[in-house]
Amino acid sequence: MNSETKLSHRERAKALVSQMTLAEKCAQMKYDAPAIPRLNVPEYNWWNEALHGVARSGAATVFPQAIGMAASFDTELMHSVAAAISDEMRAKYNEYRKFGGTRIYQGLTAWSPNINIFRDPRWGRGHETYGEDPYLTGSMGTAFITGMQGDDPDYYKTDATLKHYAVHSGPEDLRHGFDAEADDTDLYETYLWAFRYCIDHAHPAAVMGAYNRVNGEPSCASPRLLQEILYREFKFDGYVLSDCGAICDINRSHHVTANEAESAALAVNNGCILNCGDAYKWLVTAVTAGMISEETITAAVEKLFETRFRLGMFDEDCPYNAIDDQVVECREHLALSRKMAQEGIVLLKNDGILPLQPDMNIAVIGPNADDLSVLLGNYNGTPTKHTTILEGILKAATGKVRYSVGCDILNANPGRWDEHPLREAVIAAQKSDVILLCMGLNPHLEGEQADDFNGALSGDKSTLDLPASQLILINEILQLGKPVVFLNISGSCINLSRVHQECNAVLQVFYPGAEGGDAVADILFGKVSPSGRLPVTFYAADGDLPAFTDYAMKDRTYKYFRKEPLYPFAHGLSYTTFSYENLCFDGKSVSGLLRNTGSMDSGHVIPIFLKDPEDNTVNCRLAGYARLELKAGESARFHIPLCPEIVRRFSCPERLTALAGGVNGIPVPLSTRLPDAGTE
Amino acid sequence: MNSETKLSHRERAKALVSQMTLAEKCAQMKYDAPAIPRLNVPEYNWWNEALHGVARSGAATVFPQAIGMAASFDTELMHSVAAAISDEMRAKYNEYRKFGGTRIYQGLTAWSPNINIFRDPRWGRGHETYGEDPYLTGSMGTAFITGMQGDDPDYYKTDATLKHYAVHSGPEDLRHGFDAEADDTDLYETYLWAFRYCIDHAHPAAVMGAYNRVNGEPSCASPRLLQEILYREFKFDGYVLSDCGAICDINRSHHVTANEAESAALAVNNGCILNCGDAYKWLVTAVTAGMISEETITAAVEKLFETRFRLGMFDEDCPYNAIDDQVVECREHLALSRKMAQEGIVLLKNDGILPLQPDMNIAVIGPNADDLSVLLGNYNGTPTKHTTILEGILKAATGKVRYSVGCDILNANPGRWDEHPLREAVIAAQKSDVILLCMGLNPHLEGEQADDFNGALSGDKSTLDLPASQLILINEILQLGKPVVFLNISGSCINLSRVHQECNAVLQVFYPGAEGGDAVADILFGKVSPSGRLPVTFYAADGDLPAFTDYAMKDRTYKYFRKEPLYPFAHGLSYTTFSYENLCFDGKSVSGLLRNTGSMDSGHVIPIFLKDPEDNTVNCRLAGYARLELKAGESARFHIPLCPEIVRRFSCPERLTALAGGVNGIPVPLSTRLPDAGTE
Repeated sequence: MNSETKLSHRERAKALVSQMTLAEKCAQMKYDAPAIPRLNVPEYNWWNEALHGVARSGAATVFPQAIGMAASFDTELMHSVAAAISDEMRAKYNEYRKFGGTRIYQGLTAWSPNINIFRDPRWGRGHETYGEDPYLTGSMGTAFITGMQGDDPDYYKTDATLKHYAVHSGPEDLRHGFDAEADDTDLYETYLWAFRYCIDHAHPAAVMGAYNRVNGEPSCASPRLLQEILYREFKFDGYVLSDCGAICDINRSHHVTANEAESAALAVNNGCILNCGDAYKWLVTAVTAGMISEETITAAVEKLFETRFRLGMFDEDCPYNAIDDQVVECREHLALSRKMAQEGIVLLKNDGILPLQPDMNIAVIGPNADDLSVLLGNYNGTPTKHTTILEGILKAATGKVRYSVGCDILNANPGRWDEHPLREAVIAAQKSDVILLCMGLNPHLEGEQADDFNGALSGDKSTLDLPASQLILINEILQLGKPVVFLNISGSCINLSRVHQECNAVLQVFYPGAEGGDAVADILFGKVSPSGRLPVTFYAADGDLPAFTDYAMKDRTYKYFRKEPLYPFAHGLSYTTFSYENLCFDGKSVSGLLRNTGSMDSGHVIPIFLKDPEDNTVNCRLAGYARLELKAGESARFHIPLCPEIVRRFSCPERLTALAGGVNGIPVPLSTRLPDAGTE
Repeated sequence: MNSETKLSHRERAKALVSQMTLAEKCAQMKYDAPAIPRLNVPEYNWWNEALHGVARSGAATVFPQAIGMAASFDTELMHSVAAAISDEMRAKYNEYRKFGGTRIYQGLTAWSPNINIFRDPRWGRGHETYGEDPYLTGSMGTAFITGMQGDDPDYYKTDATLKHYAVHSGPEDLRHGFDAEADDTDLYETYLWAFRYCIDHAHPAAVMGAYNRVNGEPSCASPRLLQEILYREFKFDGYVLSDCGAICDINRSHHVTANEAESAALAVNNGCILNCGDAYKWLVTAVTAGMISEETITAAVEKLFETRFRLGMFDEDCPYNAIDDQVVECREHLALSRKMAQEGIVLLKNDGILPLQPDMNIAVIGPNADDLSVLLGNYNGTPTKHTTILEGILKAATGKVRYSVGCDILNANPGRWDEHPLREAVIAAQKSDVILLCMGLNPHLEGEQADDFNGALSGDKSTLDLPASQLILINEILQLGKPVVFLNISGSCINLSRVHQECNAVLQVFYPGAEGGDAVADILFGKVSPSGRLPVTFYAADGDLPAFTDYAMKDRTYKYFRKEPLYPFAHGLSYTTFSYENLCFDGKSVSGLLRNTGSMDSGHVIPIFLKDPEDNTVNCRLAGYARLELKAGESARFHIPLCPEIVRRFSCPERLTALAGGVNGIPVPLSTRLPDAGTE
C-alpha cells in the first residue's frame, strides 16, 4: 500500500464514481447502499453501533454503558476498550463480508460515540453519553475514537461517528419537531465544545446530525451548524450523515421545507451526504428539478467511497482483514470489561460498612439484583455469558445469601392475584447481617423514544425520584434498623437524599456490562477499592432543575448549578485514604505528589478544576485529570497538563485558581486549593 | 397431640365455628378469609401454588415443569421432590405467619397438582400435567400428594389439591363458558380415572372444580360430578373449591343461574365449599332468600376449619413448625431438581453423535439457549440461582463455544432496523464441529388464558409446527450439512418430522427447572445417560388430530390414536443398551431380568402395557412401570405389580397380552411380547 505507484483512496473513489449513473450515485447516499454488480461494488449498509461493544450484531463483549465508562476518568483504559470493540467489529465484518455484501449491523461504520452533553438528568438517553462536562466528554470521546479508528497509516480499522450534532438532549417525545434554543456561549462552551475537541484531537470519520432544530435550523440541514461551524470553523473533513428519518422530519415535523425532495436537497447542499432513512431516494428528482447539482452529488459519493476505500473494503491486503473472530469475547476483552466496570463504579457514601466480610449473611433485595437488562444498557450486544449482581455476590460470598426481588421495578400496585414479594424481602432482611438493596432504573425505563415502558414519557423520566414501588420497599427495609448498603443501578442521577441519610453505604453502579456482577462483588468485598467519580451532578430534588425543554445551561451541571447538590460532579470515595503534597499550578499544568495514606491498594483520579474567583457566571471548569494506581503506603509524582482550550476561555488567566478534586471523601471541587504558580 | 384428652381437629372446628355469625361464616368460605380477632382467627389466604416448587412466593427451588417430571417415570423421586416442595412451603409459612396472618401465596394449601389429561397437544396448559395417560398421571399424582401432605399421624404438612375437576383441557379462550361433552367411557377411563386413583391412594385434602361445564353442568356446581361421582362414588371426604372466578361464570358465562347468589348457593349445595373469587360474598343473601340453609354453611365452614386445624395452624406444638427457612433452595433440594431434570430429558433420536466430546467446538444456536423462562415453565418460583442451557454447556465444554440467538422465538419478520441474527448463526455453525439447535416454545407462547403472547390463541397453540422464524433458521442451518443436535424445549408435542429426518440427534428437554442447563449438559456430554420417556404422543402433523374442541378420546393419545405417530408415548432412548430376559406375566404382575448390555451406566424405565388382542377400541393401556439404575454390564431382577384398576377394566383378562416397552431405541409399546403367565 505504500508503493508510490498505488492510487490514493480518493483517486480510486473518483475513478469508481465516474462510472456511475446519477441514479446509482444517489442510491449510494442512502445508508442501505445497494450493490452495483457491474462495478464490483457489493451492497453495504452503513449502520452499525459500537457505543460500549459491538451492538445488535449478536455475541460481543458488552462493556459498561458509556456513562459508566466516563465515571472511570480513565482515557487509557477507554482507548483499550475501543480498540477491543473495533477488533470485534472488524472480526465480525470479516465474516459477514463473505456473504457477498453486508447488511445492517454488519459493517465497519460505527455510529458511536454519543458525545451530547447530559444537560438534564431527565433525558432518557443520557446514559449513552460521557456525562455533563465538555472536557471529560471530549477527552473520553477522543480516546474512544482513536481506539476505534486504529493507527494504520493507510486504513481505518473502523469509522467512528460523533453524534448527535448538535445540542440534542431531549425531550425524546418531541425530538422530531423540537427547536432547541441555545445562545452562543452555551453553544460553544457546552454543546459544541466536545465536537470540536474530538475533531481536533481524534479526526473522527463522521458526524451524525441530530433530529432537533437548533435556533430554528434543522440540524441535519443547518447552514450555520454544518457549513459555517462544522466544516469552516471546525475544519471537519469527514462525512456528515443524518439521524434515522431526520431528513423527512425537515418537511414532515419541522415544516421547514415543502417535501422530501426539498429536504434532501437542503441537507446535501449543506453537507449532510449520507441518509439514514429514505429521503435521499428523492435526490434524483431534486437534481432534475434543479434543487441540487449533479456535481454536488458526485462529490458526496466520492467522499463516501473514499471512506469505503480507506476502510479497506476493496483491498485484500488490508491488514485488518486478518482479525479473526476468535477475538470476539476473548479472555482479554472480558477482563477489560470487568476492569472498566470496577473503575466505573462510584462509592457515594460509606460509613465503614464497606468492604463487606465475605462470611456475612447477606440479604440481596431488589428488582435490579438479578436482571440482565441493567448489565447491558442500550445499544448493546448479546453476551454469551453474563454475571448479574446477584450472581456476582453468590460467587464471592461465603456466608448465607438470601434473595428477594422485593417489588416490581415500577408498578407499586400489583394485582390481587399477582405475587407480592414485600414480606419475603422483609424476612430475608431480618435474617441477615447486612442488606444490599439493588434498586434504580433500567434501560427500558430510561432510554430512547419508543423505550417508553415507564408508561409516562417516551424514554425520559418525569422525576428524579425512584418509582413508588421501590420507595415503599425501601421504607419497609429501612424501618428494620439494620445495616443497609444501597446499590443504585441507573444511567442517570436519581434523588438519593433519603438513601444517603439512612443507608450505611451507597454505590452508583450505572449499567456495568456483562461482567458487571463480578465487578460489583469485587468492590463490595474489597477485592478492588472503588475509584470512579460521578460524570454528572446528583441533584437533591426535582425542584432544583429548570424546565426540561429549557436549553439554557444556567442552573445546570456543576459549572452553573448554584444550589447544593446531593453529590457533586466528580464525587467518588475510596476504601483507602490519599493525600496531595507539594501541589504546584503553573498556569498550564498541575503537578504534585499523591500518597496512599491508607491500608489498601487503590486507584485514584485527580481532577483539576479551574476557577476565576471574580467570574460568577461559572463555578469552575474541569481542565485536566489523571488516574493513578497506588499500593497502600505508596506515593507517586504526577504532572497533569491542563487543556489549553479550557485555559484559554477564561478572560483573565492570570487570576485563575486551580482546585484538585476530592480526597478522602471530601466532595470536589473544593477540597484542595492550589497555590498560585508563583508562590511555590 | 396424641393425648386422649385432646379434642380432635373436627371437634375443635365445630366448637370454633359455633361461635361465628352467619356473615362471619360466609366470609370464611372465600379464599381470602378475613381475621376474626375476637375468636383469635388470623387472616388466611387459601391460595398457594406448588406445581413444581413453591410458586409466586419468591425464592424457591424450581423443579422441572410437571410434564418433565412425568417423563422420569420415577414415582420415588417425585415423592422426594414433593416432600422438598412442602418443606419449603412450610418453612415459608412459618415465617409469613409471624406477620399475624398470611396472604396470597403464603399459606399451606397448595392448589397442585394438575392431573388433567393432556388430551390435545394444542392445549396451552398441558405442560402443567403429567401427560396423556391416566395411570401415569394417577401414580405420579399420588407420589406428589403423599409427598406434599407428609406422614405425620396428626397433621398434614401441606394440603394438596387435585385440579381441575373435571375434563378441563382447553380451549383456553373459551374456558369460562365452554361445555365439554364426554361420554361415560371417556369420562371414567380417561378424564376421571386419575382423580379416583389419587383419592383412593393418596387421600388428597382438596379438589378444585374446573371452569368448564361437563355435559351441560358447570363443574364447580355439578350435581353429577360432585354429589354423585366425587362424594358418593369416589368417597372423597376432603373439601372442594372453585377455580378462580368460576362461580361467577355460572351465571355470567354459562347462563345456568340468574345471578351470583344463585350460583353461590348452587355450588355450595353441591359441595363446592370454598370460593376462589368473589361470588360467595352473596352467600348471606342466598341464605336469607332461602336458596341455601345455614346448616349447610355451618357444615362447610366446619370442614374448612377442620382443615386448618389439621394443618397445625392453631397449634404451637405442630412438628412442622420447626422447619427452618434454611431448607429453601438448600443443597439437597437443588441436587434433587438437577436429578429430576436429568431423568426427565428424553432422547428421541441419536445416530451416535451423542454423547459429545467436551473438547469439540460447539455452536449453540437458538432463542431458547440462554432463556430463563424456558427453565421455569409456569406456576413457578424465582430461583436465586439458575443455569440456562447455554450456561450449562459453557460450564461443561472445554472446546470453543460459539453462541447465536439465531432468530426471534416467534417473529419471522424483524423490522428493517432490528437485529437480524441469522447470518451470525450460520457463521457460528460453519466454524464449529457440531451445532446444538435450542428451539421450541416457551411458557409465554404456550400457557394459560392471558398468556397469549403467541398473538393467536389465548395461550393455546394453533399448530404443532414450530414458529416460522425458527423454521427459517433450521432450514439455513440444515443446509450446511454439518452435524446437528436438536434440543426441543417445549412443554408439549411439536411436529419434529423434518428435524427427526435431518438432525443427528433430537432431545426433548421440556421446561427443566432452575438446574436445567446443568442437567442438559450432563446428558449432552454423557455424564449421565438419558432415561426419560415421553409422557405424551408426538404426532407427525396437525392434520392427524381431531378438532381441538372435540372431547371424544377417539384418535387421541397412544390408547386411541390409529395412525403412526412420529414418536410414540413412552419413547425414549439411552446411551447404553439393555435386554430383557426371563420375562414372566402372571396376569397381575410382570417380572424378569433387565441387563445393561452396553458400556455405560444408565437408568431404564420398564413400562408395561396390557393389550386385549380382540378389542379394537383401545390399542393398549399402561398398567405398570418401574425404573431401574444399572451399571454397565450389570443386571437386576424386577417385579412390577400391575395396577388392579387397569387390569379390571379389560372385559376378558384371561386373553390379555403384556408388552414391555422399548429397549435399545425400539419404540414402545411393541418391542417385547411377553409370554402368557402359564407358558413359562
